[in-house]
Amino acid sequence: MLTRTALRTATSLSARRTVLASQRSFASSSLIMAEQKYRKEKDTFGDLNVPADRYWGAQTQRSLMNFDIGGPTERMPPPLIKAFGVLKKAAANVNRTYGLPTEIADNIGKAADEVISGKLIDEFPLVVFQTGSGTQTNMNVNEVISNRAIELMGGELGSKKPVHPNDHVNMSQSSNDTFPTAMHVAAVVEINASLIPALEELHDALEDKRKSFENIIKIGRTHLQDATPLTLGQEFSGYVTQVERGIGRVKATLKNLSYLAQGGTAVGTGLNTKKGFDEKVAAEISKLTGYEFLTAPNKFEALAAHDAIVEASGALNVVAVSLMKIANDIRFLGSGPRCGLGELELPENEPGSSIMPGKVNPTQCEALTMVAAQVMGNNTTISVAGSYGQFELNVFKPVLIKNLLQSIRLLADGSRSFTKNCVVGIKANEEKIKKIMNESLMLATCLNSTLGYDDVAKIAKKAHHEGLTLKESTLALGKLTSEEFDAKVRPELMLAPDEV
Amino acid sequence: MLTRTALRTATSLSARRTVLASQRSFASSSLIMAEQKYRKEKDTFGDLNVPADRYWGAQTQRSLMNFDIGGPTERMPPPLIKAFGVLKKAAANVNRTYGLPTEIADNIGKAADEVISGKLIDEFPLVVFQTGSGTQTNMNVNEVISNRAIELMGGELGSKKPVHPNDHVNMSQSSNDTFPTAMHVAAVVEINASLIPALEELHDALEDKRKSFENIIKIGRTHLQDATPLTLGQEFSGYVTQVERGIGRVKATLKNLSYLAQGGTAVGTGLNTKKGFDEKVAAEISKLTGYEFLTAPNKFEALAAHDAIVEASGALNVVAVSLMKIANDIRFLGSGPRCGLGELELPENEPGSSIMPGKVNPTQCEALTMVAAQVMGNNTTISVAGSYGQFELNVFKPVLIKNLLQSIRLLADGSRSFTKNCVVGIKANEEKIKKIMNESLMLATCLNSTLGYDDVAKIAKKAHHEGLTLKESTLALGKLTSEEFDAKVRPELMLAPDEV
Amino acid sequence: MLTRTALRTATSLSARRTVLASQRSFASSSLIMAEQKYRKEKDTFGDLNVPADRYWGAQTQRSLMNFDIGGPTERMPPPLIKAFGVLKKAAANVNRTYGLPTEIADNIGKAADEVISGKLIDEFPLVVFQTGSGTQTNMNVNEVISNRAIELMGGELGSKKPVHPNDHVNMSQSSNDTFPTAMHVAAVVEINASLIPALEELHDALEDKRKSFENIIKIGRTHLQDATPLTLGQEFSGYVTQVERGIGRVKATLKNLSYLAQGGTAVGTGLNTKKGFDEKVAAEISKLTGYEFLTAPNKFEALAAHDAIVEASGALNVVAVSLMKIANDIRFLGSGPRCGLGELELPENEPGSSIMPGKVNPTQCEALTMVAAQVMGNNTTISVAGSYGQFELNVFKPVLIKNLLQSIRLLADGSRSFTKNCVVGIKANEEKIKKIMNESLMLATCLNSTLGYDDVAKIAKKAHHEGLTLKESTLALGKLTSEEFDAKVRPELMLAPDEV
Amino acid sequence: MLTRTALRTATSLSARRTVLASQRSFASSSLIMAEQKYRKEKDTFGDLNVPADRYWGAQTQRSLMNFDIGGPTERMPPPLIKAFGVLKKAAANVNRTYGLPTEIADNIGKAADEVISGKLIDEFPLVVFQTGSGTQTNMNVNEVISNRAIELMGGELGSKKPVHPNDHVNMSQSSNDTFPTAMHVAAVVEINASLIPALEELHDALEDKRKSFENIIKIGRTHLQDATPLTLGQEFSGYVTQVERGIGRVKATLKNLSYLAQGGTAVGTGLNTKKGFDEKVAAEISKLTGYEFLTAPNKFEALAAHDAIVEASGALNVVAVSLMKIANDIRFLGSGPRCGLGELELPENEPGSSIMPGKVNPTQCEALTMVAAQVMGNNTTISVAGSYGQFELNVFKPVLIKNLLQSIRLLADGSRSFTKNCVVGIKANEEKIKKIMNESLMLATCLNSTLGYDDVAKIAKKAHHEGLTLKESTLALGKLTSEEFDAKVRPELMLAPDEV
Repeated sequence: MLTRTALRTATSLSARRTVLASQRSFASSSLIMAEQKYRKEKDTFGDLNVPADRYWGAQTQRSLMNFDIGGPTERMPPPLIKAFGVLKKAAANVNRTYGLPTEIADNIGKAADEVISGKLIDEFPLVVFQTGSGTQTNMNVNEVISNRAIELMGGELGSKKPVHPNDHVNMSQSSNDTFPTAMHVAAVVEINASLIPALEELHDALEDKRKSFENIIKIGRTHLQDATPLTLGQEFSGYVTQVERGIGRVKATLKNLSYLAQGGTAVGTGLNTKKGFDEKVAAEISKLTGYEFLTAPNKFEALAAHDAIVEASGALNVVAVSLMKIANDIRFLGSGPRCGLGELELPENEPGSSIMPGKVNPTQCEALTMVAAQVMGNNTTISVAGSYGQFELNVFKPVLIKNLLQSIRLLADGSRSFTKNCVVGIKANEEKIKKIMNESLMLATCLNSTLGYDDVAKIAKKAHHEGLTLKESTLALGKLTSEEFDAKVRPELMLAPDEV
Repeated sequence: MLTRTALRTATSLSARRTVLASQRSFASSSLIMAEQKYRKEKDTFGDLNVPADRYWGAQTQRSLMNFDIGGPTERMPPPLIKAFGVLKKAAANVNRTYGLPTEIADNIGKAADEVISGKLIDEFPLVVFQTGSGTQTNMNVNEVISNRAIELMGGELGSKKPVHPNDHVNMSQSSNDTFPTAMHVAAVVEINASLIPALEELHDALEDKRKSFENIIKIGRTHLQDATPLTLGQEFSGYVTQVERGIGRVKATLKNLSYLAQGGTAVGTGLNTKKGFDEKVAAEISKLTGYEFLTAPNKFEALAAHDAIVEASGALNVVAVSLMKIANDIRFLGSGPRCGLGELELPENEPGSSIMPGKVNPTQCEALTMVAAQVMGNNTTISVAGSYGQFELNVFKPVLIKNLLQSIRLLADGSRSFTKNCVVGIKANEEKIKKIMNESLMLATCLNSTLGYDDVAKIAKKAHHEGLTLKESTLALGKLTSEEFDAKVRPELMLAPDEV
Repeated sequence: MLTRTALRTATSLSARRTVLASQRSFASSSLIMAEQKYRKEKDTFGDLNVPADRYWGAQTQRSLMNFDIGGPTERMPPPLIKAFGVLKKAAANVNRTYGLPTEIADNIGKAADEVISGKLIDEFPLVVFQTGSGTQTNMNVNEVISNRAIELMGGELGSKKPVHPNDHVNMSQSSNDTFPTAMHVAAVVEINASLIPALEELHDALEDKRKSFENIIKIGRTHLQDATPLTLGQEFSGYVTQVERGIGRVKATLKNLSYLAQGGTAVGTGLNTKKGFDEKVAAEISKLTGYEFLTAPNKFEALAAHDAIVEASGALNVVAVSLMKIANDIRFLGSGPRCGLGELELPENEPGSSIMPGKVNPTQCEALTMVAAQVMGNNTTISVAGSYGQFELNVFKPVLIKNLLQSIRLLADGSRSFTKNCVVGIKANEEKIKKIMNESLMLATCLNSTLGYDDVAKIAKKAHHEGLTLKESTLALGKLTSEEFDAKVRPELMLAPDEV
Repeated sequence: MLTRTALRTATSLSARRTVLASQRSFASSSLIMAEQKYRKEKDTFGDLNVPADRYWGAQTQRSLMNFDIGGPTERMPPPLIKAFGVLKKAAANVNRTYGLPTEIADNIGKAADEVISGKLIDEFPLVVFQTGSGTQTNMNVNEVISNRAIELMGGELGSKKPVHPNDHVNMSQSSNDTFPTAMHVAAVVEINASLIPALEELHDALEDKRKSFENIIKIGRTHLQDATPLTLGQEFSGYVTQVERGIGRVKATLKNLSYLAQGGTAVGTGLNTKKGFDEKVAAEISKLTGYEFLTAPNKFEALAAHDAIVEASGALNVVAVSLMKIANDIRFLGSGPRCGLGELELPENEPGSSIMPGKVNPTQCEALTMVAAQVMGNNTTISVAGSYGQFELNVFKPVLIKNLLQSIRLLADGSRSFTKNCVVGIKANEEKIKKIMNESLMLATCLNSTLGYDDVAKIAKKAHHEGLTLKESTLALGKLTSEEFDAKVRPELMLAPDEV
């Protein structure tokens, strides 16, 4: 009954916090420490206690209080925070040319580097389910960078001197243009640095298999039914093509993702920023990241719609669909060991069942197909969220980028795991492949030109219903001699169109 | 109780047919005529009665019996049937070079022309929910073309002489390669001939509005809240960009759609076809349609996966998301007449309410947003169906192409209707636009550089809470003189970044 | 090049109509007849030509001109039109008690009966993609019924005398309450009269199979890998349970669907209707249909949200997911004939491949899984559309009901076809089932209690790697005698928990 | 360029680990500590190093190596781990009656209590994207509980003595039945303890508003256009009804979720468990949690399908759709302050824009609508995953439960945040509401019965086009005297049906 009480008391709101405390434990511990020291900060809404050793300030703290939704797993994704670091450094560098004092710009840059490196990641406790423009995360970044820069310059945390979060770190910017800029930067970096290499590894591993399987002739299957033969290499060539095209599809989304909203400020007009700021920031971000970015030709679209994110998710969705197909095929071809298709032997990576000895499961296929299902659902979330832009601003920005980055990472990690722990170790069970192909009736197809469609149908049906081999049936019906049959029915002649 | 009986008897299977008979009435009447004459046909399964005046044959008839699913609205879409006509004509032309007698090839071509023109559309009664490879529709086409060609040559329907549906019309082909070929041909034709022109019309109409609205300054809205001003032309420029990019997205899918499976035959190897057949057919289809097609470099992928269809649907999904945003904005901006935003006047196309006189509704926006919702759901169907390919064949082909073609057509028709009946007639209500902009507090933003963030916040808050105009509040707080205020707070100075 | 020209000219808008004319040919021909005679009608927008022999009037005609979206396959679904017939008859009957002259009420009822019977279905040419409240379809119904009633009473079509479409047929009603009422009536009727019986048939057929298979012991498969045995009857019992629960899920949605919006009029207040009208109409509809309906306790929710439709679609989605699982299992278990699992023999309904003689495909499974994919996508459409209600009205009504009714019908027809053409004819291939089970290593599990987990693992692994049977491996390792093995390893002992 | 290098080196696999290290920092630090001490463990695959101070064992460690997918945010959700704790305690209690030594059962129970309390949460590092049956998490639980019990009994970690993870903790169980059991337990607990109370709070807050707004008459809006009036309380009553029904929908899913798979073991037969074990475990879990659970009547369905999860997700999807509608309405009604609808005043919780002083945004609505979009996408993931069950096992279990639990938590937290930070603080702007209602033309509707539809249309149109009030227009057209108008046009008479 102790358990029951523990769970049951959860029905009251305050008790829930206790029962779920363990969920909090995934988070950096700062949120639940009891005997914290605080400093007073204030914003236009009044005074607030902020943990004394934290770089974040009043607006971050207020968001923590107002958006207790989902817990640590729902925090803004690290690649987005890093992209914000890149952006703030780039902005400081550009603002230097518009009058931002060098020392301030330098120290903003240094603080931003620590955001980029991930050193300060625990300073970004806000969840995705906050204001839909991501304003509070923009302010979180401004506060952390200004306070860290203040510290580097010997100042006092929370004093806003000599580095002001709004006036200096956010100079010439608005949440409405920084957040979508960081969205695009994060997406481009993760696609380039993580997803594409992972898909290329998978492509190369499948291509290796294709080559090594190119002389293994096997039964084809259409409608799951026995069909005419092909080589195992040909079968894998389909997978190779799918992944190759998938890489192309993902790369094709980079162009629209490379357009940055920065410079649009609040509604897209660029009010309160300087002419040229937009292009210079894009150039600076290109330099810092090594990937090409351009300022968005139309800032109104860049703030109010996120079609480029929906487009990117669409490409990821196609990759997911491809991987679902490939992983399903591989696990079915590897099914058995005795009662399945058994054409492939998948690597054994771990004990399979806690109850059945000797059983090994296609677990990498399972992980990858679960990734595919997740990405397909994320695409729905992204489509719905993308459709809801209103007037000058789409306010589903955080949920859009969270789902996109999750899809990118899962596809990247999932592909890499699948490649390393499954594809490279796949072996063909040549004995089994040969055995079932020779039992097949579908080799009959190569008799069509000799005997005609109708006679061949008779042979195949007789064999099917009487459990004969194709040869036995053909001979029994007196259609060919044994020698003629052997000369005609040769799978290796069934792998390509006829020479003219 | 008569009604009740009519509906209730529907519970028994046979009665259902009677109750639902009206649904049949959408179809060509041939299916429900009672006193039909029949001819006997046979296939490998035995004899069948086929309506005497129909060109279709045994396999079509059998499918009608076996797949009574969904009724006429679920028939194979006409653009697919037409694409089959193109394919069969192209194949006959190519087969001529591989030994198909000229007279037969010519008459296949003539019969195919009647399929292409739509003249024979009633001969294609099969529904989408049949065999997943579309085999029965391929046979339906083979039967109709062979019988019509037989007729043209003076032969007897159903005799298979002198034009055999399999040996001649389907020569060197398999359902497994013809159906995906027809899918791609239909998609490419409909996208090029219908969707892209419709989106271009919409683009041009929005661009016209953008130009004519470029000097109308209005309040911006972010988070639905009053924000800094922009021109109505700037607002529409976002829509223009969305549609422009959408056209680019759709066009980008044409490349993978242009690859044709033809020549892969049953499993992708090309068994039972001739070397070079694939390339020649692609070239012939290009010639017949005027759009470029190429033979798929990998036929295994082309049969077993339909990633190109999923990719195309993904692009349509982005267009749907864009149109949802645009149509929503326009109907909100046109809301009123007295109690909404009232910035736009939408054309009055029909009486609005059957109860409220004088009310005019944004019905074109409503139709278009319903189209968007449909396309978004079709994208889920297509993704699920695309993910389920198995081994050498994806057997969700009919549902894939039906949904894709529906999405294409609805987006095309919906855009065209929206353009013609809404966009071109949109007028700005300049008086209202000006009035509410001048009431806005957000013009305060342009005082930031003069008075600083904190003072401006005070002015805005005072005005907000006391119902003052911004000017009244500024003067009351003694921050500026009336002249200073008028010189500073000028919306026309708030539409772009500062000159450096 | 003739073909090319035919397709290409499609790029110009007017030409498109010609090229796509065949698509029109699915429609009743009235729309495209050239030499039609017309009568003049007028509405608040001016004069209009209406085909002289049509019952519809000005507002329908105007909608045809303004919403040329999607063609005949996108028309309002017949079950909705019939439900409108029921509603209008019910309203007339109730209005009689509020002063509607008896003769008018009677003739409205007679005309409505012809709508219910389907006789007048061609009088409802409007598509789904119209005004989002379905106003034009409500007016279409009002116009058709009033004109037909006028005709019955010897009056002149279009004269609005003696039966006025608004004042009499639409008396005390608004599109905003009639359309959602018709939505619910149509959904309840179709679910009860079509879907539930179809699912019950499927359930019963699966249950028959379960019984007849209850003594056939077969290998189980988890992760697609060989697992411990079960009976084929046990396997089918899972399907039986899925369908049984599915029926329960669908029935559970009827309660919220039974609440009718009628009486809410324009915004939910019931303005311009009479106290008690709502309850009386619900009672009358119950009487006419034989299904129980109640007036919605809250009319504001009933107009502004369509959660009951989203709920119903959610239940259909679960059924689709269940059927996808069942049909997939059955086609895999029936895969072969030689190179698949081959445990089931599915009925042969039609020739399979146009190239491979003797091949028979699981086409009913394919049709049903395509249905499932469609229903899953429709659920996305319905969810998106349901989420977009605004203030007092959701204006995605037509697309909501179209998708729901399509899902209902496809699931009903698909299940019925699957039952009749597949399930009832399924046979177990007992020989094959027995053979592969006996080859399996997983029977080893029943040695766990005798030999312990580790020794059993050794036996299984040795057999696996050396291609031995389990018995051979056990004997070779000297773990048991032949007699001991036979006594222990008995699949029939592995089908249930141990007796205590 | 330092940044560029940091990001760019990410392209090589090993470097990626460094660059993304910060993402790891969300995780419990154990994974990345360098100077860890290890103990040797072994499984059937060989030796492994396990961190010396960890309770987990070889199989957990192997999974960490093989499934490096997604990082800490993708770990198995804590409520599932807790449910496993409940299950293992319940199983130990039941196994006691089947011969498990009391001391072992007791200590398993104690260790399980620490899992339930969350104390051991850091011992569960495995991600969702692992084997699709969740086997490795079942083993993770077995290993942690056995080692903690061993410790409690003074034994040595990793020794498997005196408490063996398989033989004792997993006694009579299989991953295939424990994982789905834990899924259902977690879902039932979270729905009951978290979601339903949160929805009830929201319901009550909306109901409070409904009451306090019941005398505020406002303009209705259909198609976003001005319509007949209603009270603000009536408008809110629609929301109240939506949430009330939503609670009912969620509760209705509890029945199927209450069925537990436990006792089915590997394939559903219950092999290797004891008769009665299933019912006793269900009863014990009911006792421990305080919620009613029953053993699943059909274990084959319970392992092979997860329709109950899909059903539950469907109900959550309806709730999401409802909340999207409600939150959208509220933010639009609160739009302004000067240029929107301005009927509601939403509480100010934080500064809105970093650039625009005085602006306050509907951020709680934004968070909630993002939650809704997430839940709608999760429903797609769950539907796809649910559809993919194969033979005796659905191997998408982890991704199914992760998405369901995320949806539950986000809806619960989102609703609670919305209630507390928005709904309870909503105020009506009565002045604005009254002003715009009186400007409206739609009050004209109440003249229909006096003047007839056509005259009223004229009055409304004249007022509309000339900018007159309704009264001015009526008088100008000479239709009524001023006194007559005032007597007739009274919004308070337009809120209900006419008395008969």
